[in-house]
Amino acid sequence: MADVVVIGAGPIGLMAAWRSARAGAAVVVLDDGRPPAGRVAAGMLGPWSEVEHRDGAMHLLMVAASRRWPELVVELEADSGHDVGFVPSGTLLVAGRPEQIAPLRRHGQTVGTLDSDLEWQTGTALRTLEPGLGPDVAGGFVMHDEHQVDPRQAMAALRAACDVKGVEILDRCARALISEGNRVAGAITTRGEQITATDTVMAAGWSASRISHRVPMRPVKGQIMRLGLPAGRSLPVTHVVRSADAYVAPRPHGEVVVGGTVEEAADTRVTAGAVQSLLEEASRLVPDLRELELTETAAGLRPATPDGLPAIGRDTTDGLIWATGAFRHGILLSPVIADAVAGIVAGQPPDALLANFTPNRFAEAA
Amino acid sequence: MADVVVIGAGPIGLMAAWRSARAGAAVVVLDDGRPPAGRVAAGMLGPWSEVEHRDGAMHLLMVAASRRWPELVVELEADSGHDVGFVPSGTLLVAGRPEQIAPLRRHGQTVGTLDSDLEWQTGTALRTLEPGLGPDVAGGFVMHDEHQVDPRQAMAALRAACDVKGVEILDRCARALISEGNRVAGAITTRGEQITATDTVMAAGWSASRISHRVPMRPVKGQIMRLGLPAGRSLPVTHVVRSADAYVAPRPHGEVVVGGTVEEAADTRVTAGAVQSLLEEASRLVPDLRELELTETAAGLRPATPDGLPAIGRDTTDGLIWATGAFRHGILLSPVIADAVAGIVAGQPPDALLANFTPNRFAEAA
Repeated sequence: MADVVVIGAGPIGLMAAWRSARAGAAVVVLDDGRPPAGRVAAGMLGPWSEVEHRDGAMHLLMVAASRRWPELVVELEADSGHDVGFVPSGTLLVAGRPEQIAPLRRHGQTVGTLDSDLEWQTGTALRTLEPGLGPDVAGGFVMHDEHQVDPRQAMAALRAACDVKGVEILDRCARALISEGNRVAGAITTRGEQITATDTVMAAGWSASRISHRVPMRPVKGQIMRLGLPAGRSLPVTHVVRSADAYVAPRPHGEVVVGGTVEEAADTRVTAGAVQSLLEEASRLVPDLRELELTETAAGLRPATPDGLPAIGRDTTDGLIWATGAFRHGILLSPVIADAVAGIVAGQPPDALLANFTPNRFAEAA
Repeated sequence: MADVVVIGAGPIGLMAAWRSARAGAAVVVLDDGRPPAGRVAAGMLGPWSEVEHRDGAMHLLMVAASRRWPELVVELEADSGHDVGFVPSGTLLVAGRPEQIAPLRRHGQTVGTLDSDLEWQTGTALRTLEPGLGPDVAGGFVMHDEHQVDPRQAMAALRAACDVKGVEILDRCARALISEGNRVAGAITTRGEQITATDTVMAAGWSASRISHRVPMRPVKGQIMRLGLPAGRSLPVTHVVRSADAYVAPRPHGEVVVGGTVEEAADTRVTAGAVQSLLEEASRLVPDLRELELTETAAGLRPATPDGLPAIGRDTTDGLIWATGAFRHGILLSPVIADAVAGIVAGQPPDALLANFTPNRFAEAA
């Protein structure tokens, strides 16, 4: 019997397992073998670019997560011996066409209300800073503190760090929870095995709702591409470049990630229309992308709750901890979610930052 | 010692081998294992869509090839027991945007001069015939006799037919020819083996020029995509639809081939720019393509001679027969090239249609 069983081996599940094990818990992770949304994700850490008007508490959580990342990288690289792929590139949030100027300026005002003022830059000023931007870029904001991490490198590092800290990762798919009265005592696998634990962490992404109905969750499809640099070429931009319709995330090892659609769909088919639209917008932002090699197209399914906010914390059912529903912000939020899980497991009082994200808000509404 | 060694296992090499073996020759094919341009090709049989102004003799050859295809399909299906994937779909050659109207009408006049008059159709008339065409389609021509064949199905059938007729296909890459005075007596493989034969057929596509310098040849890159129908959907169009910038070839088994670029390059990298441009034009022609799944992107290298015309026939060096240089028309021309090779091997006088395509025109020029 473990202290903790984590259902799901995506970035959040692995990070929660590593943090809990690091604090002394005996941890088992159930890996259902399906590629998690984080495997497809670009890994942008964008609390200012991605905030929405209503999201004061969410913005605070995103900012806290983004500030936590650099020190977490140090700890993870020390434990794992792996490069986590953290790149302090900064981000340009731009209007790719004149129609995008007004909504982008409104976004700047939202950020000013929630946080600090952003200074509008003209297209020419942005091109002086980042000459790879296209002539259609009509202005925008420089987000000096918005960086990126490579989710695939981070996941490889997390697996290594879990291994070092004695986390046991089992190739098993959870089918149900072990319910004992008002208590969850672990998970039952599709093979019928019972994996018992004091605490059960639900980090299975959108498929968590297949295992427990207490947090309604739906998949939101995202399509994305990876482009490769031909030999001898350098990256066309150094900053992450984002508009309302696409983002371009350059990686120092010679890859550019282009994304990402937001579709109410549960399939992972790559469609001609999404590829066309993303390449059209991305190559308007950064024209030299056209000469890069299209090395991968993929689709992932993000976990979304009805209010679009994550479900983090203890369920009213004892022994059950939620760590999912991060929607488009899974990589960004993973450190604060993982720390929250490790804190709950260790019996610490919950962080006030997390009050708005209790998983029990859906049960109360129902 | 064989009667014939064919260098190259693309559609032309395999078809020449099959036709020669069918006429009684003992045939060996050298297959270097590289995917031939025909594997990537769409397989449109377009003597009227693809003709250029200067190409009177070429047009006649293309028309003859297109007329030969249906009976060749019957013979090949009988010999192989395979479906060759011939689809009598007809072709719409259209202006995808207003700027394309004038050049397309000039193309119609060229065809009228070389062959028979084409009747201009309005966009509305074309959409009545083919409701899947997009609203931007501004007019064009209906090519009732331009059909298509699936190059992959055809190649599988050719391999089976070769097998039935006793052709030996060796996994060997030809490095050089065996020269005996003014005579070629077979090929030398990269392993140093000598494959001797009375006649040596050069059907190695653009890499023929690595083996013999007598016909200068360069690769011309073409990028292409294959889209798949989601379950329960039907094809968005039934005709092949072509504009100056892209083509859309629907296959009854639920695939749509979208192509193709023409690039002076020798690599087979798929680029973001080509994928974007092709999808942009293709989905302007047939908007419903956007909902199809992008299942494959690929690039092939077409064999082009300096004058853009094929090299078909006996070299002045005895024992050497050229069967390559078909550029964008390899699948279309394969039956007439294969028949020509089989005729030469059998000692028949060359067809007058082929007089303009002698491989010796380059040696004389040099």
